[in-house]
Amino acid sequence: MKNIPQFNPKEIRTLIRKGKWEKPTAGLAMGYAQANLVILPQTYAFDFLLFCQRNPKPCPLLEVLEPGKFHTAFLSKDADIRMDIPRYNIYRKGRLERMARDIRSLWKNDFVTFLLGCSFSFEEALLRSRIPVRHIEENKNVPMYITRIPCNSSGVFRGPMVVTMRPIPSDKVTRAVQITARYASVHGAPVHIGDPSKIGIRSLKRPDFGDAVTIKKGEIPVFWACGVTPQAVVMRVKPELCITHTPGHMFISDVLNEELAAY
Amino acid sequence: MKNIPQFNPKEIRTLIRKGKWEKPTAGLAMGYAQANLVILPQTYAFDFLLFCQRNPKPCPLLEVLEPGKFHTAFLSKDADIRMDIPRYNIYRKGRLERMARDIRSLWKNDFVTFLLGCSFSFEEALLRSRIPVRHIEENKNVPMYITRIPCNSSGVFRGPMVVTMRPIPSDKVTRAVQITARYASVHGAPVHIGDPSKIGIRSLKRPDFGDAVTIKKGEIPVFWACGVTPQAVVMRVKPELCITHTPGHMFISDVLNEELAAY
Repeated sequence: MKNIPQFNPKEIRTLIRKGKWEKPTAGLAMGYAQANLVILPQTYAFDFLLFCQRNPKPCPLLEVLEPGKFHTAFLSKDADIRMDIPRYNIYRKGRLERMARDIRSLWKNDFVTFLLGCSFSFEEALLRSRIPVRHIEENKNVPMYITRIPCNSSGVFRGPMVVTMRPIPSDKVTRAVQITARYASVHGAPVHIGDPSKIGIRSLKRPDFGDAVTIKKGEIPVFWACGVTPQAVVMRVKPELCITHTPGHMFISDVLNEELAAY
Repeated sequence: MKNIPQFNPKEIRTLIRKGKWEKPTAGLAMGYAQANLVILPQTYAFDFLLFCQRNPKPCPLLEVLEPGKFHTAFLSKDADIRMDIPRYNIYRKGRLERMARDIRSLWKNDFVTFLLGCSFSFEEALLRSRIPVRHIEENKNVPMYITRIPCNSSGVFRGPMVVTMRPIPSDKVTRAVQITARYASVHGAPVHIGDPSKIGIRSLKRPDFGDAVTIKKGEIPVFWACGVTPQAVVMRVKPELCITHTPGHMFISDVLNEELAAY
């Protein structure tokens, strides 16, 4: 099975469904969009959908399913959201209760599924233009920071924006903005360029999540909205039940990154 | 008051609120985005919000207010959606009951307000690039056609896409695509270029709404998604109450069209 990275999305989802792949999905099905998962009871659905509408950079909606529905239609014609993700986090009242590899036994008719864009899509585009992506080079998790940029609140959902940071050579910053701006449905253009203190980050060496990365001479820290934001916002609300993907273990869609790009 | 077209958005909204302007808003506050209005009872709000998310070209959301809220936050800091629009249509069970110039007496705590982008914004951009906009030249309403392109349905909301048509000189079609693509939040790039029969339009001379316009030799019909789509879809559902702006009598925001543009 050493050729799994060359498998197409459907082949990988089949492996996952059969319990034969439970690892992170980075590097799989290159070219295809991967998605973050948030499942909430219907009572929260309008407010959370509106939260995403009001905060498109941290919460870029790729697909939302109607209450009780577990088959995607836009991201894939034959996926079942209850078993096609390698690993799920089950949260009760905002606390991680356990992980699971299949959530069919937990499914309820009032569950609303949200699938959100993931920065894997634009990182591929950056690499294609020879713009370095340091955490990939250093084989680390992307560094993530809680900022003092407030999200636009909606009902019970409120909180600060979480960002990722990638050090970019100063002569490639403009190009990095142009490239990521094409991908509005996967976080889009940067939210901040340069001085971290301007958005409330004290030290780049101590990220709130993920790993610190090397910043070389002549590189500028560039910050993009991060998909951890909606999860952090949901956890503050402590819903009786919330199911997400386990970080890094994404939903692999049949939609090409290029199909999501603006032009 | 002959200088009203030079008034800023707040000045015009003040005139409207005082009952001193009840006419269409085309040509007012040039440069600022105008918005379509749909107000629905909360029971329909999630499905309609999801309908807009699934159909961003005909239903480009500019702002959605939480249940019962009547002050905008994004489009203006000081607008009251109950009296800052020149004329409202009151629909009961899908039928126009009457028009009104103020809806404060009808307001209920479960009303959810949706404000959607309007093609005035991109027409201004087309004209700025010397691309003709025929219905403006001929002082007519834009021609609108019901197509056989289905919208993506959501709950009870379903129906065909309605489009507007503008004849564009063949050597300017590419430029027209590029310009309108920048304005994703006001219908964006065309949905179809050329042969009307391909999208189920029998005759350009007989639009379903608005007026037919002249197509000159060497011009190609270009079709954009139309904000009439969500209204038509809502009317099919026959909600007990629905309030919209009267066509042409839009909400004038404090947001510049350029602030809505993608790049």
